[in-house]
Amino acid sequence: MSKELKGACIIGQSGGPTAVINASVLGAVKAALNAPQITRVYGAAHGIRGVLDQQLYDMGMEDPAELELLKFTPSSALGTCRYKMKNPDEDPSDYEKLLETFRRFDVRYFFYNGGNDSMDTCNKISKFMQKSGYECRVMGIPKTIDNDLFGTDHCPGFASAAKYIATSCMEVQHDASCYDTGMITIIEVMGRNAGWLTAASALATYAGAGPDLIYLPEVDFDMESFLSDVEKRYNATGKCLVVVSEGIHDANGEFISKATTNNNDGFGHAQLGGLANKLAEVVRSRVPSAKVRAIEPSLLQRCATHLASTTDATEAYLAGKTAVQAAVSGDTDKMVAFERDTVYGQYVCNTKLLPLENVANFEKKVPREWINAAGNGIERPFIDYVLPLIQGETGMKTVEALPRFARLRKVLAKPVCE
Amino acid sequence: MSKELKGACIIGQSGGPTAVINASVLGAVKAALNAPQITRVYGAAHGIRGVLDQQLYDMGMEDPAELELLKFTPSSALGTCRYKMKNPDEDPSDYEKLLETFRRFDVRYFFYNGGNDSMDTCNKISKFMQKSGYECRVMGIPKTIDNDLFGTDHCPGFASAAKYIATSCMEVQHDASCYDTGMITIIEVMGRNAGWLTAASALATYAGAGPDLIYLPEVDFDMESFLSDVEKRYNATGKCLVVVSEGIHDANGEFISKATTNNNDGFGHAQLGGLANKLAEVVRSRVPSAKVRAIEPSLLQRCATHLASTTDATEAYLAGKTAVQAAVSGDTDKMVAFERDTVYGQYVCNTKLLPLENVANFEKKVPREWINAAGNGIERPFIDYVLPLIQGETGMKTVEALPRFARLRKVLAKPVCE
Repeated sequence: MSKELKGACIIGQSGGPTAVINASVLGAVKAALNAPQITRVYGAAHGIRGVLDQQLYDMGMEDPAELELLKFTPSSALGTCRYKMKNPDEDPSDYEKLLETFRRFDVRYFFYNGGNDSMDTCNKISKFMQKSGYECRVMGIPKTIDNDLFGTDHCPGFASAAKYIATSCMEVQHDASCYDTGMITIIEVMGRNAGWLTAASALATYAGAGPDLIYLPEVDFDMESFLSDVEKRYNATGKCLVVVSEGIHDANGEFISKATTNNNDGFGHAQLGGLANKLAEVVRSRVPSAKVRAIEPSLLQRCATHLASTTDATEAYLAGKTAVQAAVSGDTDKMVAFERDTVYGQYVCNTKLLPLENVANFEKKVPREWINAAGNGIERPFIDYVLPLIQGETGMKTVEALPRFARLRKVLAKPVCE
Repeated sequence: MSKELKGACIIGQSGGPTAVINASVLGAVKAALNAPQITRVYGAAHGIRGVLDQQLYDMGMEDPAELELLKFTPSSALGTCRYKMKNPDEDPSDYEKLLETFRRFDVRYFFYNGGNDSMDTCNKISKFMQKSGYECRVMGIPKTIDNDLFGTDHCPGFASAAKYIATSCMEVQHDASCYDTGMITIIEVMGRNAGWLTAASALATYAGAGPDLIYLPEVDFDMESFLSDVEKRYNATGKCLVVVSEGIHDANGEFISKATTNNNDGFGHAQLGGLANKLAEVVRSRVPSAKVRAIEPSLLQRCATHLASTTDATEAYLAGKTAVQAAVSGDTDKMVAFERDTVYGQYVCNTKLLPLENVANFEKKVPREWINAAGNGIERPFIDYVLPLIQGETGMKTVEALPRFARLRKVLAKPVCE
């Protein structure tokens, strides 16, 4: 048993939001408010930016009922940022500012809730604090719809986005196949380097109404094979539903979304829009008889709490709570991770702790054997992997049939020492 | 009491699908299967196209349990079309084909489920049948997410799409406001000439997290006022969420989003889309410090049965059932319409019948006084109008947390006489 460490804690959120990231904040805040070792519970305004600027909310001042609503409130309730910390050996100024905030607010616990880049930040802070001699326990709480954090079975936020993509693909498949005319539909899903969320569209096919073709960044994208795949399917059925990851790239690693086309709108203006629009343009010239539609769900896919998986929200909560409890018990310099178990045939999610330096900046990709040989579809092991994660209807509260999301007071805290 | 008319019926779907259009088919099919006057119940494959081509499904062959799932199955389960019937005086050939189908299948009842253009088709068929001397009762069943059918308080399909837009806007508002950087978000909502669905985004603002600015086609769009509105809001708060209707146009009636191709939808309407991207481009040059994001929910907004309003689905069902019951009782040449009533302070929806020629090709727009004076926001009377319509959680069935939509057998029927 580690010696008891008394002091305040900071909880911060960082990177792109998810449908359930606030469930982790709720888990962490409640555990911290309940921990006798933790004297004050601060929420960092916009992640590390709030720590640097001493913009900390006093979470003890929040209405407990509003806090409870965080479990099903999308986006980052404390605010987020994409701030890259420099290497402290090159420029220690940010770290000195952090230290000043920690000292002025008597902070002894730091919890950072984010994805790959945030775990890098968390790791740097942890190592700096160790070197500085300021006693402080630092823990990472995972989140990312990309599901690409290393060492964990899956990441909070992924399953809810996966459920949204699967459900939306089923609905679009119905819509896009009801006309008596040829129709090709291309849906673009988030995921720069890892195709987990794009692969989730295969759940729709598993449930009877999904994409015909799926392309992930794990396989080099070849435009000619793609066009031939689409054409073959279209010629056979008059329809084709394609789901592509925004991060697909050619064999040279060049993003397809970056590739320039010679098409313009007739006035010399380049066509606007993302990857799906670009692919649609190419498909239109190859299959002129088809109506080709590009759909980019954009932010909708990462903030759809109305379709959140309760399994996901509960696990996100667990990750936040575990981080606080482990830190209070003496752990530091770790990220909470998930381990999958099966008990009497039922999926069970256990937590474990991983050293931050083992997680930071590594990316977990979809195993090649979960993608079909042609690189345009998903194999059954992926379905078995993702299906337990999306279970459980959302617990989102509604008033007059509209979401009732948490409304925080966000009272700025004053330093305890000058 | 009209004399009894014995014979088969055809039910067809036409135009763009909705989240609850199949609830109307369910209502009509069940009422028809229960009506002793109706000898056979046919579903037209792809609307009027199936009638012309004698592609009729025998709805009596369907599994009743699968039929029940139609209430919460998106898109047009029987298939749809955008086929424009010519004026019978110019070219009667299609009408003669229809008559042949009606004779061969002993059809005495025709129910057509669709929006403005479909009611025009329905009206033409009704008038031709009267002139031809072939006894047949023709009824229109309304549907459209556009909510622009004349003479009815509202249209089945609108409320579910409205709920989807409102919920998604609330979620996006949370997502788009969590960063510490300047952000302008532009969401493009369907609606060519009427802004009902775009106006529904005001529900999100009513519920605490919605757009700052809303632009409908009911008001001429002025680019300079728009840019100044956005800039003002952005300068004050660092954020701005805008919702625009795809059909906004300038004072000359020119669509702000001009067709990028020469394609049209079969009725001579230009294909719109890409407006949000276009506006984002203009805003970027005006406010270079902001990140500007365009979101086009596209098909997602009209097929989101997972967010369907049960009030909407129940009323869609009622519309289908009423059409059949009225026709069996002797009515013809009418469309089912809704009338709103308040009983003990509660919203109640009654049905009435309108002559088809009063409905066909008229468009109902959002009243100018429900839009603010500046033409960039929505007034309270619209909220009071739409709020009762979106009530009731979706009754969509799920299996393993994924939608379980109806799977019809679609057995093609054989003619009863040669």
